[in-house]
Amino acid sequence: MTRQVKVVILGAGTAGMTALKEAQRYTDDVLLINAGPYGTTCARVGCMPSKALLEVAHAYGRRDWLAASGIRGTNTLEADLESVMAHVRKLRDGFVAGPIGTAEALGERSIHGQPRFLDATTLEVNGERIKAEAVIIATGTRPNLPEAWRSFGDRVVTSDEVFELESPGRRVGVVGLGPIGVELGQAFAQLGCEVHAFTRGESVAGLSDPDVNQSLIDVLDGQMSVTTGVEVRLHEGHDGVVMQGGGQEVEVDWVLASLGRRPNVEGLGLENLGVALDKRGVPAFDAATLRIGELPVFIAGDVDGLRPLMHEAADAGRIAAYHALHPNAECLARRTPQGIVFTEPGAGYAGLIGAKLPSSGVVTGSVDFTRQGRAVTAGRNAGRLTLYADERDGRLLGAEMVAPDAEHLLHLLAWSIQQQLNVDQLLEMPFYHPTVEEGLRSALQGVRRELGKRRTQPDLPLCHEPANAALC
Amino acid sequence: MTRQVKVVILGAGTAGMTALKEAQRYTDDVLLINAGPYGTTCARVGCMPSKALLEVAHAYGRRDWLAASGIRGTNTLEADLESVMAHVRKLRDGFVAGPIGTAEALGERSIHGQPRFLDATTLEVNGERIKAEAVIIATGTRPNLPEAWRSFGDRVVTSDEVFELESPGRRVGVVGLGPIGVELGQAFAQLGCEVHAFTRGESVAGLSDPDVNQSLIDVLDGQMSVTTGVEVRLHEGHDGVVMQGGGQEVEVDWVLASLGRRPNVEGLGLENLGVALDKRGVPAFDAATLRIGELPVFIAGDVDGLRPLMHEAADAGRIAAYHALHPNAECLARRTPQGIVFTEPGAGYAGLIGAKLPSSGVVTGSVDFTRQGRAVTAGRNAGRLTLYADERDGRLLGAEMVAPDAEHLLHLLAWSIQQQLNVDQLLEMPFYHPTVEEGLRSALQGVRRELGKRRTQPDLPLCHEPANAALC
Repeated sequence: MTRQVKVVILGAGTAGMTALKEAQRYTDDVLLINAGPYGTTCARVGCMPSKALLEVAHAYGRRDWLAASGIRGTNTLEADLESVMAHVRKLRDGFVAGPIGTAEALGERSIHGQPRFLDATTLEVNGERIKAEAVIIATGTRPNLPEAWRSFGDRVVTSDEVFELESPGRRVGVVGLGPIGVELGQAFAQLGCEVHAFTRGESVAGLSDPDVNQSLIDVLDGQMSVTTGVEVRLHEGHDGVVMQGGGQEVEVDWVLASLGRRPNVEGLGLENLGVALDKRGVPAFDAATLRIGELPVFIAGDVDGLRPLMHEAADAGRIAAYHALHPNAECLARRTPQGIVFTEPGAGYAGLIGAKLPSSGVVTGSVDFTRQGRAVTAGRNAGRLTLYADERDGRLLGAEMVAPDAEHLLHLLAWSIQQQLNVDQLLEMPFYHPTVEEGLRSALQGVRRELGKRRTQPDLPLCHEPANAALC
Repeated sequence: MTRQVKVVILGAGTAGMTALKEAQRYTDDVLLINAGPYGTTCARVGCMPSKALLEVAHAYGRRDWLAASGIRGTNTLEADLESVMAHVRKLRDGFVAGPIGTAEALGERSIHGQPRFLDATTLEVNGERIKAEAVIIATGTRPNLPEAWRSFGDRVVTSDEVFELESPGRRVGVVGLGPIGVELGQAFAQLGCEVHAFTRGESVAGLSDPDVNQSLIDVLDGQMSVTTGVEVRLHEGHDGVVMQGGGQEVEVDWVLASLGRRPNVEGLGLENLGVALDKRGVPAFDAATLRIGELPVFIAGDVDGLRPLMHEAADAGRIAAYHALHPNAECLARRTPQGIVFTEPGAGYAGLIGAKLPSSGVVTGSVDFTRQGRAVTAGRNAGRLTLYADERDGRLLGAEMVAPDAEHLLHLLAWSIQQQLNVDQLLEMPFYHPTVEEGLRSALQGVRRELGKRRTQPDLPLCHEPANAALC
């Protein structure tokens, strides 16, 4: 007998769970099929355990500044890595409990097993055949690991395994300095480990502006060895793993391989959908509706490769489920793009940066945080922020930064970009003293200087504008 | 001989310095007269040295959490108060250098002395007579101190003296729990002092919402003794100062009196302006132009009592100088009101709160930060945030909070209020994961529930709206 279901969701991660919730607003006839472990990538092996580790590392990383500020005894502090990792796992277990519980509560509407498409609306899982009116593929991704490195066993780990390390050795290698490599590399360095990081390109943390990028490299250089622009080779050492690249050779206890992620598509039978697959094995889809061709099949979350970030995956799940159940609905827009790297100082971007900016007609403004007042009071004065604006009207287009409290400045900027605010409007907003937001104001003033505009009055809204009535 | 000057500015603090800078955009014929010390209240004895102290205290205050997270040796840490205070003064000296330098660079256009109005356009200072086309009064405020408490000498200090303490005793009393009392009381408590705080009212840190207020009292209660709703009396003790109030009696080494501030108007001869003075000795003025009656005399900054905050004083100085030199100019609006208290967690408000809210037609939404994800990873999970919105259209009116990173959430909210955004528009903004901004989202969702509105689609903008073209 074939089971008939209105909406089948493949994957119980972030996108799958928001797809489920959105679908449940319209129907109870849903089925969740999950092949891997429960609990989202974010909660299990991503944002949450990494933040638990980073917060300890960043706070412990302030010990030299505390000593310089009048606190005695910091030289006898020590990070007990075994306890730190146990602390991280304890918090992690709390965070995965939520999504696991949601899947369990589905009862018969949840299946653990590897699903396989027989055709666009027919699936097989654990020998059972399922006929679906719509299917949402939300199977996520997993870390890349070169096949040859598997022979190193638990001495070469990815973010999938790193939080399981019970007593990590203190000589740490990092290969790849994207957001994950930079965050975890800095964390282990702040915790007192000797960290050696290598990356193929010149960019770290996904930054595109050379000066902003360099400001993060400068910070990291004081904490660990950073080698950019080299391919690294690994081989067995006397008492660990030897990393070789760029004329350097160093032996470490273990290596974090942070080399990007690949979609979980193996075994799904996507070849039976009757549509072309790209070289990653992912079918083409409409970026707005997430629908695959004319099929009642949608693809959402990291697996689609569009915006592999937790809050974007959550939106993608909702969009897919909404369109699956409203075939004629108008399409939904995405939020302003934003990426945050939780180093100290933080890093990231909002809006358009690098190659996505128009090739001409863009003015910039920057601020250096090494002398920013509030950052100085906190001993967190490092980094650089650059803004991009349209030279025609001063409208903010994008921003990239390394800055104390970058995650918050990036929200202010992403929200401002989404509202298409221009530099004059932004300079009319309140900037409290003393805050790092005043650094952002300096960069905005820099943009205005570049625009060649001269103010005719103080940076305040005019009373007569009706929108300002409440402010007068 | 009488000196003729276009614009005379009385006071070299924040408002005086921005008035100077604004006036200098239109004329070089300015004169700065300052009776007190140079360097602004903020840089000398206010925001800057207090932040230098608070940052050390907050970071050191994480030692128990660090111990619970796997860091060994925190029990032998000790705050060397003498070194901490020296660190604060060293930073402070750097911050006052700027405004002192600006005043010095004025040469003969800067006079140190007590100015006195003979009439609205004639002043006398150091025996010299000055005829001004316009005068800006920006003489600031000073802390209140009951006359009877002066006999305690340096054992009862205000914020004017506290940063000069070279080796403060570890038994500390605080009288008054406004923003300054709360910030400094918590700082000394976090630094290991035994702090006893008393305040007359039930509110702390200027908070108006009872639940938000209570959430800060709960935090402080774990760090120091807090007694609200009592008048405290001081008398000589055996080995310090005895504080008596509400049935309690406790001896401390020294007391911080944080009992508000009074305008610096003595000796200015304001009675010679020919206008009525209020009970504080301050003349009536137009809140928009800061002009006193029909006189060419303006009043700006803390002395005017309107918005005694650094960034507002800076705006007031600009507004006064602009109108002094542009008598027929259209008036300027003020930025959205915002107040930040730099405790840990932070506290404050944006927009309308308490008695300023309409008496009906307001819906609320709240979030408790004790279980907020990101706050939990940082061990900074305390506080409560409440939003106020117009029930007719969901437009955000105000917010009050005790929250980790409150200073940044308050910027997001103040900017949103200034743009008159409603709850639906706000929920279409990006909220990155994991951040405390997600706590704000929960409160916004609470407002929407209160509005009784049901969503018909995911919280995303529609593609068809032209403003969203760039997002699709």
